[in-house]
Amino acid sequence: MSVTAPEGFVAVGGSAGIKAGGMPDVAVVATADGRAVPAAGVFTSNLAAAAPVQVSRANLKDTGGQVAGVILTSGNANAATGKPGLEAAWGLCDAVAITIGARPKEILIGQTGLIGIPFPIDVVLPQVSGITSDRAAGPEAGAAAAWAIMTTDTVPKEVVIRGNGFTVGAMAKGAAMLAPNMATMLALCTTDAAVDPATLHRALLEAVTDSFNAMTVDGCTSTNDTVLVLASGLGATPSSGALTAALSEACASLAQQMVDDAEGATKVSHIRVVGAENDGAAHVAARKVADSLLVQCSLNGEDPYWGRVVSELGSAGVSFDMSSVSVAYGGVVVCAGGVAASHDAIAVAAHMAGRHVEIVCDLGVGTGEAAVLGTDLGYGYIDENRTTS
Amino acid sequence: MSVTAPEGFVAVGGSAGIKAGGMPDVAVVATADGRAVPAAGVFTSNLAAAAPVQVSRANLKDTGGQVAGVILTSGNANAATGKPGLEAAWGLCDAVAITIGARPKEILIGQTGLIGIPFPIDVVLPQVSGITSDRAAGPEAGAAAAWAIMTTDTVPKEVVIRGNGFTVGAMAKGAAMLAPNMATMLALCTTDAAVDPATLHRALLEAVTDSFNAMTVDGCTSTNDTVLVLASGLGATPSSGALTAALSEACASLAQQMVDDAEGATKVSHIRVVGAENDGAAHVAARKVADSLLVQCSLNGEDPYWGRVVSELGSAGVSFDMSSVSVAYGGVVVCAGGVAASHDAIAVAAHMAGRHVEIVCDLGVGTGEAAVLGTDLGYGYIDENRTTS
Repeated sequence: MSVTAPEGFVAVGGSAGIKAGGMPDVAVVATADGRAVPAAGVFTSNLAAAAPVQVSRANLKDTGGQVAGVILTSGNANAATGKPGLEAAWGLCDAVAITIGARPKEILIGQTGLIGIPFPIDVVLPQVSGITSDRAAGPEAGAAAAWAIMTTDTVPKEVVIRGNGFTVGAMAKGAAMLAPNMATMLALCTTDAAVDPATLHRALLEAVTDSFNAMTVDGCTSTNDTVLVLASGLGATPSSGALTAALSEACASLAQQMVDDAEGATKVSHIRVVGAENDGAAHVAARKVADSLLVQCSLNGEDPYWGRVVSELGSAGVSFDMSSVSVAYGGVVVCAGGVAASHDAIAVAAHMAGRHVEIVCDLGVGTGEAAVLGTDLGYGYIDENRTTS
Repeated sequence: MSVTAPEGFVAVGGSAGIKAGGMPDVAVVATADGRAVPAAGVFTSNLAAAAPVQVSRANLKDTGGQVAGVILTSGNANAATGKPGLEAAWGLCDAVAITIGARPKEILIGQTGLIGIPFPIDVVLPQVSGITSDRAAGPEAGAAAAWAIMTTDTVPKEVVIRGNGFTVGAMAKGAAMLAPNMATMLALCTTDAAVDPATLHRALLEAVTDSFNAMTVDGCTSTNDTVLVLASGLGATPSSGALTAALSEACASLAQQMVDDAEGATKVSHIRVVGAENDGAAHVAARKVADSLLVQCSLNGEDPYWGRVVSELGSAGVSFDMSSVSVAYGGVVVCAGGVAASHDAIAVAAHMAGRHVEIVCDLGVGTGEAAVLGTDLGYGYIDENRTTS
């Protein structure tokens, strides 16, 4: 399902030797007829942007947002790889373009995996034409593509949203390094909506803001974050609001799936800040709480230590008045007016024992609000990240 | 030793029932004759500042920096405790003042421990006069005070610096929440230097910048961070440079001791950024690397995954050019010109196996430089912080 659900797209997942043991590591998604269609992308803000980010940005710019296909690879980020890395990314785009009958500039690329390891282009390149040739329509092809982009993910992430006369399909990979301005994540959306590149770009930006940019695992912003969308134009022409809504829903689902499958996490936190000076301040405060190691450790231990939450709110750099702060866990107010509130400790304990923990912080200084998805911090994250081997 | 090393100070440590089991939890340091002397303080930037921070700030302001004694307590932060918390802090200052024959405003207070728990003033207050009465000169008294301010510290932190005709003594507690703008830490410096409050304040600010504000464990800024200094005036009048140098050396030693004893840490990281646009940018970048969970996990696993270091540098928000970055572990360059450099992997592994790991990042864009002390992230931190019980 997912990226092949909208009309006009084919996909494939295959093994090209980036990962050991013949694991799937290359996905190609393209228009069924090799035609370039409106496309848009949102990329990492990291100034150490990887080669594929540089290439995709340039190709979108040079074509005015007209794209025929996307190649996504996993197992090696092709980041901090210098000129050879750029040449590798160009080579992959070329191979796909030749196979599907498009121009190289009409191919985008996303890559994920370890940073700073030379990309094994000599091993991979000979496989790309063959893999691309196997592209097909239908749900199995979309699923195979979603499997091929996984790294430390334990399950593929896919979603399909049906609009009025159009469909959005999307897939993503993510795990750790999920943070401000996206995460170590790749996401590819397809739609059959008939839309121009500029409208598509605006809709994607808005969708990303409320989804991938509103989740965090470890506060790290990756070198490779990439969210792409291609629009075949074979369906209806939605209003920009309808398109944005469908893309937002797709991205929000993928973000939720990513946090649910975050490296080593045992809890998903839903941190909501209300009563902030404005929405921006609420977002900053919510992210500060969600990113806090001490709060994350408390979630791991199922300890409703709201003092740490208040401490993070107070150091978030937003308007703050201790005497007007309240904090609730799962709807149970544990702090009011900046001090401990008598409460039903058993209800709080029951809520914290679940996988999803909701913390609502009311700053009491305005009407701004925002929500951020986060995780706990436990042994699992450390196990996953202490060595790369 | 420590705070009683300079001429003119007495100290005591005792148990007042804040901690369970009769553990020491109150320290009082005062001038030997109860006279108010020049003093200065630097406090947390957290807007959820605890009651003792509010009281000490006010007392320093109201007296123009003339202080006769300090009471420090551990086991309860007296933070997020509202008006009763303020009244408790005032009560503690009053009790010390009466006992040593000073005015209440001439007493400062620092407290550390859990946030959001009402301070048990009814239990503690009756003990304070008795404890204060036992104050004494000499090294044992200073050591007892240093013991009484520990929370999750495993060893007391003390230092004595001898200047030309004057001495600086200092003690501190710290553990987790060691981060920007100080840490969950209390530090008290004494000196017999003859100096006015304004000069003392400037010297303290400078000493804090290069010590407590250049270390990090978890990026959390506490509600209670407090660094104080009292100057008895019984020694020589140092130049402001000499005073700053001695205070800086004392604070740097305490910062090093704190990071060495950080909750659950197995490594101390020395992150140095050079070649930045300016010193401020270098500090931001160094802190970004030191605070990175992924870098900290790599340190725990002794994995020289420099790609994560470069990724943090690229997302630090400072001037950055991927092609000019280099990274060295223990003096061995592993990344040059933004790509992997062939290097002696055995030498790097040997360096990372030690307790102290040095990472030098050259941004190659200017002459700014800065260093930050950090730690690794392992099971120990989680064990220490997942529950408060």
